[in-house]
Order: sequence, then C-alpha cells, then structure tokens
Amino acid sequence: MTKVWSQKEKYRIWFEIEAYACEAMEEIGLVPKGTTNNVLKASGVDYDVAEIDDIEKVTKHDVIAFLTYLSKFIGESSRFVHQGLTSSDVLDTCFNVQLLNASNLLEKGLDDLLFALKERAFEHKDTVCIGRSHGIFAEPTTFGLKLAQAYAEMERNLQRLQRAKAEISTGALSGAVGTFANIDPKVESIVCKKLNLNPETISTQIIPRDRHAMFFSVLAIIASSIERIATEIRHLSRSEVLEAEESFSEGQKGSSAMPHKRNPVLTENLTGLARLVRMAVIPALENISLWHERDISHSSVERNIGPDTTITLDFAITRLTKVIKELRVYPENMKRNMIQSKGLYNSQQLLLLLTQKGVSRENAYSAVQKIAMQVWESKDLDFIKEVQEDDFIKSYIDENELLEISKLEYHTKFVDALFNRVFGQK
Amino acid sequence: MTKVWSQKEKYRIWFEIEAYACEAMEEIGLVPKGTTNNVLKASGVDYDVAEIDDIEKVTKHDVIAFLTYLSKFIGESSRFVHQGLTSSDVLDTCFNVQLLNASNLLEKGLDDLLFALKERAFEHKDTVCIGRSHGIFAEPTTFGLKLAQAYAEMERNLQRLQRAKAEISTGALSGAVGTFANIDPKVESIVCKKLNLNPETISTQIIPRDRHAMFFSVLAIIASSIERIATEIRHLSRSEVLEAEESFSEGQKGSSAMPHKRNPVLTENLTGLARLVRMAVIPALENISLWHERDISHSSVERNIGPDTTITLDFAITRLTKVIKELRVYPENMKRNMIQSKGLYNSQQLLLLLTQKGVSRENAYSAVQKIAMQVWESKDLDFIKEVQEDDFIKSYIDENELLEISKLEYHTKFVDALFNRVFGQK
Amino acid sequence: MTKVWSQKEKYRIWFEIEAYACEAMEEIGLVPKGTTNNVLKASGVDYDVAEIDDIEKVTKHDVIAFLTYLSKFIGESSRFVHQGLTSSDVLDTCFNVQLLNASNLLEKGLDDLLFALKERAFEHKDTVCIGRSHGIFAEPTTFGLKLAQAYAEMERNLQRLQRAKAEISTGALSGAVGTFANIDPKVESIVCKKLNLNPETISTQIIPRDRHAMFFSVLAIIASSIERIATEIRHLSRSEVLEAEESFSEGQKGSSAMPHKRNPVLTENLTGLARLVRMAVIPALENISLWHERDISHSSVERNIGPDTTITLDFAITRLTKVIKELRVYPENMKRNMIQSKGLYNSQQLLLLLTQKGVSRENAYSAVQKIAMQVWESKDLDFIKEVQEDDFIKSYIDENELLEISKLEYHTKFVDALFNRVFGQK
Amino acid sequence: MTKVWSQKEKYRIWFEIEAYACEAMEEIGLVPKGTTNNVLKASGVDYDVAEIDDIEKVTKHDVIAFLTYLSKFIGESSRFVHQGLTSSDVLDTCFNVQLLNASNLLEKGLDDLLFALKERAFEHKDTVCIGRSHGIFAEPTTFGLKLAQAYAEMERNLQRLQRAKAEISTGALSGAVGTFANIDPKVESIVCKKLNLNPETISTQIIPRDRHAMFFSVLAIIASSIERIATEIRHLSRSEVLEAEESFSEGQKGSSAMPHKRNPVLTENLTGLARLVRMAVIPALENISLWHERDISHSSVERNIGPDTTITLDFAITRLTKVIKELRVYPENMKRNMIQSKGLYNSQQLLLLLTQKGVSRENAYSAVQKIAMQVWESKDLDFIKEVQEDDFIKSYIDENELLEISKLEYHTKFVDALFNRVFGQK
Repeated sequence: MTKVWSQKEKYRIWFEIEAYACEAMEEIGLVPKGTTNNVLKASGVDYDVAEIDDIEKVTKHDVIAFLTYLSKFIGESSRFVHQGLTSSDVLDTCFNVQLLNASNLLEKGLDDLLFALKERAFEHKDTVCIGRSHGIFAEPTTFGLKLAQAYAEMERNLQRLQRAKAEISTGALSGAVGTFANIDPKVESIVCKKLNLNPETISTQIIPRDRHAMFFSVLAIIASSIERIATEIRHLSRSEVLEAEESFSEGQKGSSAMPHKRNPVLTENLTGLARLVRMAVIPALENISLWHERDISHSSVERNIGPDTTITLDFAITRLTKVIKELRVYPENMKRNMIQSKGLYNSQQLLLLLTQKGVSRENAYSAVQKIAMQVWESKDLDFIKEVQEDDFIKSYIDENELLEISKLEYHTKFVDALFNRVFGQK
Repeated sequence: MTKVWSQKEKYRIWFEIEAYACEAMEEIGLVPKGTTNNVLKASGVDYDVAEIDDIEKVTKHDVIAFLTYLSKFIGESSRFVHQGLTSSDVLDTCFNVQLLNASNLLEKGLDDLLFALKERAFEHKDTVCIGRSHGIFAEPTTFGLKLAQAYAEMERNLQRLQRAKAEISTGALSGAVGTFANIDPKVESIVCKKLNLNPETISTQIIPRDRHAMFFSVLAIIASSIERIATEIRHLSRSEVLEAEESFSEGQKGSSAMPHKRNPVLTENLTGLARLVRMAVIPALENISLWHERDISHSSVERNIGPDTTITLDFAITRLTKVIKELRVYPENMKRNMIQSKGLYNSQQLLLLLTQKGVSRENAYSAVQKIAMQVWESKDLDFIKEVQEDDFIKSYIDENELLEISKLEYHTKFVDALFNRVFGQK
Repeated sequence: MTKVWSQKEKYRIWFEIEAYACEAMEEIGLVPKGTTNNVLKASGVDYDVAEIDDIEKVTKHDVIAFLTYLSKFIGESSRFVHQGLTSSDVLDTCFNVQLLNASNLLEKGLDDLLFALKERAFEHKDTVCIGRSHGIFAEPTTFGLKLAQAYAEMERNLQRLQRAKAEISTGALSGAVGTFANIDPKVESIVCKKLNLNPETISTQIIPRDRHAMFFSVLAIIASSIERIATEIRHLSRSEVLEAEESFSEGQKGSSAMPHKRNPVLTENLTGLARLVRMAVIPALENISLWHERDISHSSVERNIGPDTTITLDFAITRLTKVIKELRVYPENMKRNMIQSKGLYNSQQLLLLLTQKGVSRENAYSAVQKIAMQVWESKDLDFIKEVQEDDFIKSYIDENELLEISKLEYHTKFVDALFNRVFGQK
Repeated sequence: MTKVWSQKEKYRIWFEIEAYACEAMEEIGLVPKGTTNNVLKASGVDYDVAEIDDIEKVTKHDVIAFLTYLSKFIGESSRFVHQGLTSSDVLDTCFNVQLLNASNLLEKGLDDLLFALKERAFEHKDTVCIGRSHGIFAEPTTFGLKLAQAYAEMERNLQRLQRAKAEISTGALSGAVGTFANIDPKVESIVCKKLNLNPETISTQIIPRDRHAMFFSVLAIIASSIERIATEIRHLSRSEVLEAEESFSEGQKGSSAMPHKRNPVLTENLTGLARLVRMAVIPALENISLWHERDISHSSVERNIGPDTTITLDFAITRLTKVIKELRVYPENMKRNMIQSKGLYNSQQLLLLLTQKGVSRENAYSAVQKIAMQVWESKDLDFIKEVQEDDFIKSYIDENELLEISKLEYHTKFVDALFNRVFGQK
C-alpha cells in the first residue's frame, strides 16, 4: 500500500496520463504524427524527486515543475505534452487511479479477513457460550454465531467498498473550468478507457468531491466494524472472562514491570486505528464545498488522508485477519462462565411457558423476576432449583416441562439456519 | 417529517409490529386462534403519552410500559403479545420503519430539487459568465453548466440515498441475543414482509449499526452538496459580483440597523444546516461498536440524531429548492464581470496556438505570462490589444487567428454535449 | 436548564439589553430624558410568541419583528429603542448571557458530582480491589483510588468550565461592522457591566466565535470524562466481575424478554450522551471562520447546539451524580476476583527483589515470566507456591522475604499520600 | 518541529527519564552508589534504531526493547534501570515532554504572527475600506481594524496555548496501576522537577487523557482562527474585489493551463490545513475513556496526531506569518469598491437622524429602504442624491445635516479607541 502512494508512483501515473493524452490527440490529429513516440522516450525514467522539487521552488506549481523536468527527456515534442489540459486533469485523475489501486488492495484484504472469519465460525459453530446484553449474562449463543455476525457485517463492508470504488473510478480531462474549450472530449474518453476509469459526467475543472467523501465514509465504517470485533475480543480476553485470547508468542513480553502480563494489545491497537480512520470523514466532507469552479483547499487534506487512511486501514485489516486466525478460544472457560450464571438464562422460557398456561404476562414476569433477583443476589442459589420449589410456579408447570425448556439445545436449534442465512446453503 | 418522529407515530408502529407478530404466530399455531382479533381491539387507540410515561417511571423500561398500557385494551389475550420477542425487536424494527419513511420524504425532496435545477439549467444553458478557479477569473463558462454540475451531483446523491434506504430496510424479530430460541424465524419473515422490510441476515438481538452509520454518512454527503450550491450562490450574491441573488420579498428587512441591506440569508442558513447534519456522522460511527450481543449506548444517540438529522436535511432540501426556483439571475452583470477581466481569459488559447506554431511550452508560457501580468496590474490595459502589439507574438500569430481564438464560442462549443451527458439525449 | 433556553427567556434578555442600552444613552444624553421610563412600560410583558412569529413572517428578520411587537407597549419612545445597535449586538450578547447562565448550572452540577465522588472515595479508601491494565489483572489498588482519580479529573473539568465561562462572558454593542459609528462605546460598557459581562475587545459586528468553540470544546471534554467513569462502572457491573452495580429499584424491569436481567442502563446511557455532546465540537469550530465582518451561518448551528449540548450535559452530570451516590459496591466480590488472580500480581515485586539481589533484569524477567505463564494457563496453580518451589528463585530469595513482598499492604502504602494529593491535607 | 518527534529524540528523552530516575533512587538510597555513573555511560549514544526495532520484533514491547539495547552500554548496573517503573511512566512522561517542546515552538510561531499582524495593522490603521456582512456592502471600516481583530483573536489563542501547555506539563513515575507500590513518590517529584514538569496528581498508570484532549482542542481552535484570516484574504483576493493579494514571486506560475493566473494558493492551503488540525479533536476526545486503569488504544492515535497535528499547525502559523508580512494591499481598489456601493452605506445614519427628528422607527425604515432598494437595483443612481430629492426626507433633514452624516470620518472616529483596546495605550 505504501507503494501506491510513493512520489515516484505518482509521477509514473502523471506520465501515463500525459502520454495517453498525447496518443489520443495524435490519433485524432491534434498533434503531429510521431509526437507520442517522442513522448514515450520518457517512459521508464527514474524520477529525480529532488530535482523536480528544486524546479517547484521557482514555479511554485507541482505539475509545471514535473513537465519542465520531463521536457529534458522528450525534447522538442514536449510542447505538445499537457496540451489543452489543466493541472487538475492530471492531479485528479491520478488521485483516483491511486484510490482505485488502494481499493483493490483493501478488497483483497477484506477477502482474506472474510475467509478467516468463515473458517473460525464453522470451527466454533456449536461452541456454546453465554450471550451478553449490557455486559450482563443474557441467554446462550455460540461462539460461531458471534463470528458469523462479524462475517455478515464485513461482507456488507466489502460490498460498500466495491461501490465506493466505483464512485471514485472516474477521470477528467476537461481543461480549465471543465468546458473542453482547448481539448476534445474524445481525448478524455480514450485516456479514461486505458486507465479503467469512466469519464466524469461533468467536472468543473475538478472531479466533484462528493465522490471522495463517500469513499472515506465507507473506509470509516469498515474501521468501525473492525473496532466492533476488536472490542469483542478485548472483552473476551478480560481476566474474569478469558473465553478467547490473542496468541502470545515466544519471547513476547506483556509489560516492562509485570512479567505475568498477557494483554490484548493487538485488538487495543485496532481500536485506536479505528479512531484514526474515522477522523478523515469530516475533512473529506468539508472538501466538498469548494469555491466556484474549484479551489485548492482540498489538496493538502487529500495529500494527507489519501495515504494515511488507506495505509492505516490496510494495516488494520491485515492485523485483524491475523488475530482471528490465531485466536485462542477456550470452550472450557465458556462453560465455566455459563455455569456461573446459575441458570438465570432460563428466565424467559419460564415466563413464556407460564403465559402459555394462562398466567398474565405481568404476573408471570413478577413471579419469575422475584426468584431471579434472589438468585442474582445470592452466592450459591440455582435458578432452576429455586423455581422447582416455588409453589406458584409449581401449580402451573411440572418438573418435566422445566427440564425440557432448560436444555441448551433450546437455544441452539436455529444455529444451522442462521449459518445458512449468512454463508448460504451448503 | 415531524410526524414520522412523533411519539404517537412511534407507538402506532410498535403496535403494528406486535399485531403483525401475533397474526404470524396465530398463522403458524403458536398462539390460540382468535388472539389477533383480540389484539386488534387496540388498533386505532389514541395513545395517552402521559399515562405511558407514568408507567415507565416505575418499570424504567419503555416497551414494558407500552405493553402494560396496551393490555387494558386487549384484555386477557395480552399475555400473547410480545411473546418470544425482546424489546430490541420492536425498537430496532420500528426505528428502521421510521428511517424508511423519512427516506421516502427525502427522496421526494431531492426529486423536486432535481426538477428545479434542471429547469433553471436549461433556462441558462447559454448564459455566459466567467468561470473562476481560486476565486480568480479563469475562462468563460455558462450559468447553465454550473447548475448542470449541481444536478449531476444531486442525482448521485439521490442514488446514494436509495442505496442507504435499502441498507436500513431490514427488520429483526429474533429474540434475546438473536438466536430465535423463543420465536420462530417464520414470524420475522412474515412481519418484515408486511412492513416492506427484509429480515436482517443475522442480528445479535439488535440490528447491526453499520447500516445506520452508512445511512447518516449519506445524509451528511447530501448536506455538504447542499452547502456547495449554497456557497456558490453566496459568492454570486456578493456586492462586487452580483450575478445572482436570492429573491427578496415585499416587507422583508435585511438588517435592523441598515435599511439598504439585502443579504443571502437563506443560503447562509443552509451552510449552517450542513454543519448540523454532518455532525451526526461521528456518533453514528461510534454506535457501531457495541458491547457483546448489545448494549444500549446507541439509543440516546439515535433518539436525537434520528429525528434531528432527517428533519434538518428535509428542511434544507426544501429551502434550497425554493432558492433555486426563485433565484434572480443577472446576465448583464455576468457580462460586466466578464469585461472586467480585460480579456485575460484568452491566455490559454494563445499559449497553445504558440506551441502549435513551434514555440516551446516554456517560452510560450513566459511570453504570454509577461503580458498577462502587465494587464493584471494595470487599470485599463486590454489583453488582446497588448498581445497584438507584442513583437514576439506577432511573429507567430496574425490578427485573424487571434480574433478566432478570442471568440466566446470558443469556450461554449461543448455546452450541448455536456448537457447531453448530464440530462441525456433529448 | 430548559428555562435558560426558552423563547420567552430569550425575549426577556433581549428586552433587558435594549432597556439597559436606552438607560445608558439617556445617561449620556443621546436620547431624551424620560425615554427609559417609557421603555420600561414593556418590562414584565408576557411575550406572545405566536404574534411575534407572525410579524417575522413578513419582515423575515427576528429582531425587527421583536422590536415591532415591543413598540405597541412603549409607544412613541420606541423610536429610540435599538438606536445605533444592530441585531447582532442583541443576539450575540443575549447568547452569551444564556451560555453564562447555563455555565452556572453546569458548575453547580459539577460541584454536586465532586461532593458525591469525594464521599464515596473516602468511604472506599481502603477497599482493596485488583487493578487492571488492558482489562487484565495487574496489581492491587483500592476502589477509593479509582474514585479519587475521577474526582481529580472532574476538578480539572470544573476549572476548565470556569475558564470557558470567562471566555464567553463578553458582550458587544458596537453596531454595524463593529465600528461604533452610531453608538458610543460607553453604552456598551454600561450595559455589559449590568449584565456581568466584559465588553468584547474588538468585535466585527459579531462576537468572535473562537470563544464559543473553546466553550463547546470544554463541554465535550467533560462529557468524555463522564464517559470514562460510566465505562468503568459498566465494566465493574459485568456478570463475571460484579464489583459494583447501579442501584435497581422496586418495580424496575431490566428486559422485556428476560425477567432475570439487571443492566447498567444509566451508565450506558451516559456513554451515548457523551457522543452527543462531543458532536457539537466540529460545527463550533467550523463556525469560527465566518465571511468578512460576519455571516449568519453560525446562527442555525448555535440555535441547535446551544440548548441541546448544555441540556444534555446537565442531564448527564445529574444522572452520574445519582449513579455515584447510589452505587452498590461489593467488596466481597472484589476479594473473590483478587483471589482468582492466583497471586500473579506479585510478579513485579519478585522481579525487583531478584534484581536487587544481583540478577540481571533480563534473567530475572525470564525466570518470573516462566512461572507466571504456567500459572496463567493452569486452572489451580498458585503463583507464590510455584515460586517457592523454583530452584533458581529459591537460591536468591527466602520464604520470609517472599511473604513480606506478597502482603497486600505492599500495594496500599501510599493510598493516604495519594488522597492527600487529590483532596488536600485534612 | 520534526526534530521534536524524531525516533532518536524520543530515545534521548526516554534515557533522560531513566537516568534521572536512577539518580533520584541513588539519592534516596534505593540503588547502590555509583549506579548513576554507570548508567550515564549510555548518555550521548547514537541510537541504532534498526537494532532496537529488531529486538522489538521478539519482545513485542517497545520499552523493553529499548532497555535491552541500553544494557549493552551500561553493563551490570542496567538491572537498576527502570526499577519500579512501568513503561507508561516513561512513555507518558516522554510524550508530555515532546508536547511541551512542541508547544514552545508553537508559542514562538504565534509571537511572530502577532508581531506581523500588529505591524500591518498599524500600517493600515486608517486605510478605509467597505465592511461587509453576509458578503454584502455594509458600512465603512478600515483594513487596520480587520487586522486588529485578527490580532486580538490570536492573542487569545496564545493564552489558550499557554494554558494548554500547562495542562500537559505533568509527568508520572507511579508504577503499575499508579500506586507507587514499587517506587517512592520522591523519585517522581525529583525527575519531574528536572524535566520542568509537575507530578501528575493521581495517575492510574497513565496520565489521564483529558489533559491531552484539551491540548488538541486548543490546537484546533488556533487552526480555525488561521482559517478565518485565510478566508478573509481569499475573499479580498477575488478578481472582483482585489483589495489585497498574496505576494507572487518571480518565476511563479499560477496555472499549468492559463498563464494569466495569480491565485491565493497559500491561504487556500491554510484552509485545508485547518481541516487537518481539526480532525484530531474527536480521536483525542475518544482517547479519554480508557478501560480501567489503562488500555493502550490511545497509543496509535497519539503516535499519529502528536507529530502530525503539531507539525501541520507549526507550518500553518509560519506560512500565515509570511502571507501577512508580504501581503499586497491595494487601498485604491478599496476606494473603488467603496464608490461602487453608491453611497448605500449611509442608510443607517439617515434612519437614526429621522428617528431623532421624531419619525417612528418603522416609518423611517420604510422611507430609507424604499430609496435604497431603487439605488440597489439601478446601475447609476447615487443614494445621497436620491435622498436629497425625496420629499418626505427633505421635510425633516436639510442638506448640511446630510453632508455631515455622510462623511467617512463618521465611521472611523473610534478606530484609535479600538486600537487602544487591542494593543494597549501607547
């Protein structure tokens, strides 16, 4: 990803755009035959970044500095290079090519992440653990369902990324204020085709920035989904919970002070990285409202958030994939925590059975809540046992019925159906 | 739009979900025949918001308060209402119904805005004005092209809104921690169908919030595009520019101190509203990463940004439509400003003609820039006249050629083609 | 707090400013003697908001509508009301009065919160619990220290609020574009004094918005500190941890589906409210850069974030105070969790004792880490016991030394000193 | 500023903290005499960043990697280095030293900017230009007043920066979970003193992040104030306005396409930089709410926004200073624009004079507005002339009075007083 944003790669793309434009102009007779051949003398040049910088110190204009540098290699024909173009044509089209290249890498990263999530999801499809709402024991679920949810969310993100990629896959070679006054629209269409871009429907010298705002918004959503998964793992790693844990390598040290420590540092790091990716959204939105046909306030923003955000997200996706792949899962601790819940997770089935038997919802709720609160506040009471001894409840429900609803299978009966919804029929 | 978010409308949708669920359960035999009929006794109830609030003060739970209130009307069958559901099923599905209704209104608003933009764009397709980059005279364009650009951007926004609407068009009736332990998935599918929603692929008691983050991101982009158009009008309204102006009504007063004032207050207001809509994006992104199967931190956020953001954006779209429709356009002032540019906008054609004649780009640029800077700093020099008297340039270009490239048609020759790209072939 | 922002309160302040200005002008002879007396006929008016709204529909200017309404009560002297002022003078000065009133309420709220935190901190000064870094058992601390930290942070917030209050305690009556062309600066200074404001050093018709950006930034920091405390309580409430818990009242219901639930809903709510308060910062910052001497884009933003942010924060502070006061603390569970750590929290003392005895840091770390990791991965090993049986460590440290460093007092010896640092010497 | 954040500078500060801690421990007898001397053998080491990175690849812990590297130079005494400390002690204290150093540079930059603003303000104290509200001609002001306003705002920013600097001028050497279990608080106090820091009142292993949120909020306000000034200059540079202009150097080129262009690119760039600095506020606020005694999610955020934000702001301040110093101001164009206003800026004086003469405010307003609107919509009418011919007005005001109030001095009479308010009595 770093290569996508290197100075030399940028110059390479700039040259590509100028060369394709020349070729197109030669094709439709706007520059003399043979011009493109001369221009191509500069292909493969190992750009001397320092020298171009020196020229820019005088011109205070990056594209003109680049063209001046190029002319050394091209000679007399260089007067046809950039003909009818304005620097935005080159800069904006190049930026979109870079975003497109970055998107392809991110897409590849998401594919790998999805693969890892799917594998671990199936591995733990039936690994029962307690589900928690508000951080409080609720009802049983499976670890595989947690990963299936993450998979479904990331698959949505992949689709969003693909649409966002389509949004920024446009190029513009429309000249000053976008009127094509000095350049034939055919040149734009030929160059865009070669770059796998669509011509921008209408540009005002610049490609409109609503497209880029959409792009960075999608990156922020992906990063926030990563944070969601990272936060789940951080919670499961807590000393008191320890249902899963990041792998900890030979020689690794958790703390400079406390040799006993093993910390979920990778997922904490992912939490921070999500904040960094998210912060690009507001400036990307502020970039939309440029003055008249264009101003250049967006430029410094994009020079920063373009590389920073895609590199950070790419790193985060790769890191999360590794975390998922190597995640240590502890089914025994999941059982231990489930037992710790003292059977309270059966409260709903009981409530519903009572209403089915004719008890009003309010009364059923009160009866069940009363027992549940006693168990909650006790050290060693067991919910099912307490229920069995409750006269009110006994008058409606017999022991067998109670046994039936308190089986774990009661909660997992639709796991396969849910896996089918997420991963498709096998 | 305010109605979409009223307390009574919320209760109406809650009831609808509960009633449809009952109907579905009756259909598949989970509740006794006749239950739905009893439940429907409560349809059309004029909800006593204060009474429900009073119940909530005890239960500290909004949905339970609502169900308790309902039971008065339904009687004994009320024990089957909400069977197997958890409050998130009702709350999240209702929120999405509200967002869907809001989206439909926003879509209608964008349609009207697009219509207004198109009409004014065709009206001023050939109204020539100076284009400006960096706030500085660049080259001629037409006022219609400005509006066509706005149209194209808003059309993209309409498509984004439609996709965002699809993103939030899901419902979930999957029960606690989303396992369907106490409710058959068929109920979810029947209810969703009736509400024009798709069943959420996999929910963890709650509908995942990446969908809503996407939704609010799109609203923020629309708002920023509105800001772009508003900013353009504010610029054009400036005293020195005055190429267009918001309509100013009989009796309107621009300033409490200065009776002479007519200010672009509507578009300034739109600029502020854009900031308000944008600010919802970060909390919407922060809402994604909830703890485990759910926590409720997103709730207070959405109770605020749900109504506030959609109402504000709806107001802004309507206001902008009115501004566009009634915008006073001053073609004469556009001409006056064009003249004020002293012909400098011809500099590029001249540069290119020189390079076509064999002058190197660097030399051509220097020659043209030298004259242009003299004209720039003078009060009354005219660029074309100065060029005609320049010995270097005269040695390459004759007067007729100069006349040819300095015609306004040189800049407008592709206006029709651009209109075709934006609005389609007629 | 809602009263601070009511429409009638706003009109009351507007009138106060106009009346004070009249009085000042009469004092320095700019309006006839007796004018103020006539003006004061309108004091105590019960503003007919609907009527003023109707006038505004024609004038499209809120202050002029208000003045027109007022003139009914004042009669002929009303021609001197608002003399030399511009509407910004009234609007901006009023807004700052409202922010000042809001600040005073927030300050009062913080005082109460600090009091509650201090009380509970001293109550639990010596209640030992395990400290956690990265969610992982680290070393012992006390519950009182946690609250002392919260106290110190909130005390800093109180000081920030006081400085922020000073920042927005300015008024301006400087007329159009702020030049005092039509109003004597003495009027400004007299009116400001009566309103407990300082005259704005230099205004450009409007009070500069860097002041307000500072104000809203401080509110966002306070909200984020609230989130920090709320998050701590949410963690401590987790089923597996249960070291503290929000109070749960008679009749309260935790879940519509699961009667056994008791959820930390107040602190989750506070987490969401923090997001809402934070979101106002960016628009407040965007408000700084207005065009030339003023534009009105900030107005719609402030009409929203002014009341919303202060009301939300006020509510959050009050809610947190109640949570802290009524927090149920479970020292026995703290002990239980401490025991669950299997003595691993002694690893650092052991490491340091070894280095004191001459072992290199690297070797000491390895030796201790090796044993710690075995204990970590086991079910029932005890760290101290394992250490006692390790030949390498035994060769440096005897049993008595080990006993000495593994006492809990080792960790709490500076608690009193830290309390002195936070709360001052008693 | 780049040096402040270099890898080697970070290591230099880390070593400084460790060495001072050793010295303090030796002073109070916690490590053997002579230890510090041995430690100081490593002072002045040219850190081999690559080697330290290699060690970190194994330890996955940056501070341990650093200590391991250091031990090569220190030898046997290295077992006393970092004694009782935890890595946060070093990292957080170092980060604050870096922020402090960065603040000092920013302060210096603001001093220079203030000096430049003051100089140019006095130079143009009496350079009259038209003031604009809503982008519309309002009443006359002076260019010096614009700069005086900027000066006052930046002086507030300097004070905010100084307070923010004090906020982050704390250090902590309190060990794991901040209890001083393994380190005497005296060490903290000695080390902090040597580093010009205050000991953090109470830390939980980490220095609380509300301090840093405050710091980054202030940077964002400064950046937004820079944007305000930059936006003013961009407006004044517009072709139609041209009252001021960025300097344009020999050899500079404004556009690759249009040789005639001279664009306000520096101030547009500053506008973009403001967005970049602002975007750090939200993550800095999100960093406050860490889990329990600490988590490490803030770290990746700060590693990014620490250097990026201070370097960007430093660059922006320096760039703005240069723009202000070299700004070309065009008093003649200011006059031209003033004339273009056709005298409308006299409307308020006229209104007030009429009310002074006994006309009601409403009638006076209507009479003046009617004439003003005619002049506004005309090409060549002059407001004062039209007024002179208006029968209604003539019946109250004679020509001499009219002449008196339409003098420019009417508007500038308090300029000196305002300068005294901003810059103090001379």
